[in-house]
Amino acid sequence: MTSLSDLPIRDDLRGQEPYGAPQLDVPYALNTNENPYPPSERLVKALGEAVADVAGTLNRYPDRDAVALRDDLAAFLDADTPGLGLTGRRVWAANGSNEIIQQVLQAFGGPGRAALGFEPSYSMHPVITRVSGTRWVNAFRDEDFGLEPERAVAAVEEHRPDVVFLTSPNNPTGTALPLEAIEAVLKAAPGMVVVDEAYAEFRRAGTPSALTLLGGHPRLIVTRTMSKAFAMAGTRLGYLAADPAVIDALLLVRLPYHLSAVTQAVARTALAHGAELLGGVEALRRERDAAVAWLRAEGFAVADSDANFVLFGTFPDRRRVWEAMLGEGVLIREVGPPEWLRVSVGTPEEMAAFRTALKNAMKESL
Amino acid sequence: MTSLSDLPIRDDLRGQEPYGAPQLDVPYALNTNENPYPPSERLVKALGEAVADVAGTLNRYPDRDAVALRDDLAAFLDADTPGLGLTGRRVWAANGSNEIIQQVLQAFGGPGRAALGFEPSYSMHPVITRVSGTRWVNAFRDEDFGLEPERAVAAVEEHRPDVVFLTSPNNPTGTALPLEAIEAVLKAAPGMVVVDEAYAEFRRAGTPSALTLLGGHPRLIVTRTMSKAFAMAGTRLGYLAADPAVIDALLLVRLPYHLSAVTQAVARTALAHGAELLGGVEALRRERDAAVAWLRAEGFAVADSDANFVLFGTFPDRRRVWEAMLGEGVLIREVGPPEWLRVSVGTPEEMAAFRTALKNAMKESL
Repeated sequence: MTSLSDLPIRDDLRGQEPYGAPQLDVPYALNTNENPYPPSERLVKALGEAVADVAGTLNRYPDRDAVALRDDLAAFLDADTPGLGLTGRRVWAANGSNEIIQQVLQAFGGPGRAALGFEPSYSMHPVITRVSGTRWVNAFRDEDFGLEPERAVAAVEEHRPDVVFLTSPNNPTGTALPLEAIEAVLKAAPGMVVVDEAYAEFRRAGTPSALTLLGGHPRLIVTRTMSKAFAMAGTRLGYLAADPAVIDALLLVRLPYHLSAVTQAVARTALAHGAELLGGVEALRRERDAAVAWLRAEGFAVADSDANFVLFGTFPDRRRVWEAMLGEGVLIREVGPPEWLRVSVGTPEEMAAFRTALKNAMKESL
Repeated sequence: MTSLSDLPIRDDLRGQEPYGAPQLDVPYALNTNENPYPPSERLVKALGEAVADVAGTLNRYPDRDAVALRDDLAAFLDADTPGLGLTGRRVWAANGSNEIIQQVLQAFGGPGRAALGFEPSYSMHPVITRVSGTRWVNAFRDEDFGLEPERAVAAVEEHRPDVVFLTSPNNPTGTALPLEAIEAVLKAAPGMVVVDEAYAEFRRAGTPSALTLLGGHPRLIVTRTMSKAFAMAGTRLGYLAADPAVIDALLLVRLPYHLSAVTQAVARTALAHGAELLGGVEALRRERDAAVAWLRAEGFAVADSDANFVLFGTFPDRRRVWEAMLGEGVLIREVGPPEWLRVSVGTPEEMAAFRTALKNAMKESL
């Protein structure tokens, strides 16, 4: 039998393991930052109808540039953050923000180029960077998971990366960045600056979005997703807002017809029902803040969170705690700094199960 | 205003134009090798229902490895070519065979590596190769668009590429390869050999598929698509069959959750209605053979075709012919060798319009 090591794969892939949280069938899945609130029956019906509406022409290729969907996404961002004046010409969409990030690296990274990120952060940034043939440079967040503008600028000036990743709110820490940090990096960076805002809709009142910096910053890219607050992880729809010239660059590297007619129809229908889909965000914010308060009251170290998850610790042996909780049917995530664990914020019932399982796990590890 | 040239894009992308056939709204679109027969009302209904069935859990991520879909695809290939003994473990799926090709290059190509193809062939092979940071090596088909095993082997031995692309039936010429050519390349190639069989279902009786060579050739990858014979271009579903170790390699580079729950459901439903969707293939083969015969009777040079398109010529100024036909509402494709044009095979009505428009265009150019 042939094994992977017998094949002529790229040298830098040898010995690597595939990315991915375990996909286990458990009562309480609090490991991939999904929105626990499913679409309503009304929306389910509308989604089926939307697909039936396009199904009659599925023998034809989809709109290669997804113009109508991009217009809808621009209108959504514009309604969310008034005054942006966005149009579809400044928005781009792909199969999840992973594909958005890949396209950005294919256009602005590649062989001989480098991308820099501040860890701990979204673990796919370095993976996608390397797969694109771009060199990855590890910089680091502050001890409290924030990012002092001066330190960020120093890292950028030292490494002169072609692409900088900033993540706000940051995964897996939940930390949002002040606009000053982003502006300082934009000023110092010789190349593109990607602000990954996958969790932006969960941020606390008063926390800004990098979308407000788009005017006058043609090298800024802000990425968003419908997988988290928008409760559409199964649809795989990521998007970005940027200068129209950035979109022109992505047109050179995107796979033609990358976004299916079905995805375009489903995403547009979901956007038309945006109020319903985002209806769970307020409840999730409350559960998050309650989880942070409870964990602190129990004596854990907890990172401030503007996202729909909470990073907490510290555990000399986090694997043991993770396994004990899994034994009670609660799946959380071993990710980020070695002594910490991350829990996605779920429904009140799910969070009650989380609290019980964590307490029991702590008793066991005594 | 910022223009593309102001941005720090990769040097090798500077000055390039985005790939793509014009997406024009014309009465007769015979330019992208789509299947002209749309899904039936029964299938449209089934597709809507299939999506409604999964829509209730779209807040959750899809099966990252698309296991059920891959099993269905394996069963389809196995029924199509009895004796293969394929299982889902030897099949991989992605958003169109473009993404399949990209993943293959990301795993087996990349910086410092090279891929070789025999032109004229599918124009996305070199584009995706370069975007992946892989060097592209142009070899050439014979004058009759075939590929003599000795010449193919000589090109492979000269350049020692990490990936070889063979296309059978070849786009845009329609030429199928004999198994001897594929076997000879497999023997000579130091790396992976991709046989792109996007149009395989249209091949004439007696023309073999490279699927029959999978046993004993762990470096062989055969790609297929649901966009052509399967009449599902709008769904974007490409797939491959290969050794399980090849799939293990692709797991290292694929974007996690690359295939949406909706795409998986739509593709599985289409496969369950495979007999209907493939029902147009026989009619398209007949129209193709009729088009070849008619074009030859009219005095054109015509490439033998095992696909759902026909390459014909030769025109000192093909652009003029193409434009004259477009003026009559018939959109064909300017692609391949400079003096040739390609027409996708449509319905009898569409092909009648093609014949009329071509005759008129030829009169005009007199």
